Amino acid sequence: MAIHIARLNHGITLVPRRLEHVQAVEALRENKDYLPNFPLPNSIKITGDLALALKGTDIVLLACPSVGLRTLCTSIRENLKGKHSVKAVVTLCKGLEISTLLPPASIVKDIFPNLLCGVLSGPTFAGEVAIGKPTAITLATTQEDEIAVAIQSNLSNSQLRVYRSGDLIGVEYAGCLKNVYAIGAGICDGLQLGDNAKAAYLTRSLHELVKIGIALGGQAQTFYGLSGFGDLVATCFGPWSRNRTFGQRVAEGHSPQSIIDSQKTVVEGYWATDCFHKLLAQKHLECPILKEIHNILYANKAPREALVSLMNRPLKSEV
Amino acid sequence: MAIHIARLNHGITLVPRRLEHVQAVEALRENKDYLPNFPLPNSIKITGDLALALKGTDIVLLACPSVGLRTLCTSIRENLKGKHSVKAVVTLCKGLEISTLLPPASIVKDIFPNLLCGVLSGPTFAGEVAIGKPTAITLATTQEDEIAVAIQSNLSNSQLRVYRSGDLIGVEYAGCLKNVYAIGAGICDGLQLGDNAKAAYLTRSLHELVKIGIALGGQAQTFYGLSGFGDLVATCFGPWSRNRTFGQRVAEGHSPQSIIDSQKTVVEGYWATDCFHKLLAQKHLECPILKEIHNILYANKAPREALVSLMNRPLKSEV
Repeated sequence: MAIHIARLNHGITLVPRRLEHVQAVEALRENKDYLPNFPLPNSIKITGDLALALKGTDIVLLACPSVGLRTLCTSIRENLKGKHSVKAVVTLCKGLEISTLLPPASIVKDIFPNLLCGVLSGPTFAGEVAIGKPTAITLATTQEDEIAVAIQSNLSNSQLRVYRSGDLIGVEYAGCLKNVYAIGAGICDGLQLGDNAKAAYLTRSLHELVKIGIALGGQAQTFYGLSGFGDLVATCFGPWSRNRTFGQRVAEGHSPQSIIDSQKTVVEGYWATDCFHKLLAQKHLECPILKEIHNILYANKAPREALVSLMNRPLKSEV
Repeated sequence: MAIHIARLNHGITLVPRRLEHVQAVEALRENKDYLPNFPLPNSIKITGDLALALKGTDIVLLACPSVGLRTLCTSIRENLKGKHSVKAVVTLCKGLEISTLLPPASIVKDIFPNLLCGVLSGPTFAGEVAIGKPTAITLATTQEDEIAVAIQSNLSNSQLRVYRSGDLIGVEYAGCLKNVYAIGAGICDGLQLGDNAKAAYLTRSLHELVKIGIALGGQAQTFYGLSGFGDLVATCFGPWSRNRTFGQRVAEGHSPQSIIDSQKTVVEGYWATDCFHKLLAQKHLECPILKEIHNILYANKAPREALVSLMNRPLKSEV
């Protein structure tokens, strides 16, 4: 996203959270750990000094794993005491906070109640955005005011198109939920169930995702849009997705915990599955697919057995 | 489908429409032209004699290109004069009749007004059904009576699951429409637009497909189900689809007409694009994606130019 923004000739400063990461990115002019092989243009500034980075900044974009979001927001707030130029805080996170089960923008709103808060979400593999491949993304904000419109138009060009949405809750839950179902799609791939089964799995998954999303306060149309359906198909079919790949490896016989422990990048869907499982229990909502994915990841259920039990539910009408 | 039915120990007779095809399939015990490398079990009878095939038959399944559907139905009707055992006629076609713009079951109903008529539709690549890979399919019928329930349970086993739907119009239009949008997905592939762009294309396509389907009398939920969304993603991502492959070759520079002329198998979406284009003109429904696919296939518009003009429509909210 920083590379895209630099291409648009906006000033942009990257602020990696760990000092050694700041140094590595500065030295290599590349984010070797999380997006290797994409050189950062010279116009992108890199610093570990939040106060410096925030000076004169209009818009703060938060691109961290959701587990670090609250801490990051709190640090930013510390640096925004007194007069500052920040007009909006927008997150690109797609995961729930484990202790509170809150989605990303709710955390941001908690900490910045007087700023425009928002989410950017949709089918946006970072490598393709960096190259400048055509991409569409949804911007959902606490208010659809002139700042939201300015962010939309300032982030858009002929390669990246930003659409606005007023359904902030829906957009952020959609982004978190699709990671759960992408794990299931990866399990279908790992079990080599075939394209018919994967399509049927995704159809029922979209149905369940919409049901959950509405129960949590989102609008149906949002889940059929870029941040729901769009991100779901991209994640479930693209070669890039960490969540899909994670599911595939689980189906191939690796233990979920061992995969999580062995890699640097965060598999948001792994944590989100447990968070949503708890949320749905609170709401007494029956979601057979999410339940079986939870069984596989947290209760040692064999992936094939879980998928078979989904297939063998009683025959009935589709809807 | 015949191989699946034979596995269920139901009697099944294949009736290829051309005499030389009857002879070829009989001689090889394989449908070399349309599904090579899948040997037909001995229990499947093969004949060119419709009268013989219909004797004692309960259910007629029509699996021909939609261009041949009315002629085939008319021949069957000729052979059902007087007493017969046929209880239902179910089509697997996914295309409109060029001269009347009617969808498949409407033609079947026209010709068999006193029989239960229906459609089987969904993400069902034939090769996977033949192998016995897990598959889910929708059965929509003129009435949801005990015959429909019997077809559902008699066609279902642990590999193939049949779901019922009362939205016959929706299910059949969904199957026809997805072929149009699959051509566009193939064009995205051929132009190497990337996964983000393809996901965005599919999101807008589903939106447009639902809009058209509702305007033609179907129910929104149908288009988000197996026969809409499910078949759309299978067709757009599976390696098997003739429609997706056709779009890809068009984007790679082959003329649509020359591809159509050079191959034995029917690309239903090519013909359906023109049929829907005419239907939408009658209904004054604006559908930018279908319009651009029509421009590419029938008005020599360069694929890249057409896709770029879709991307560059005015920025706005998503829904």
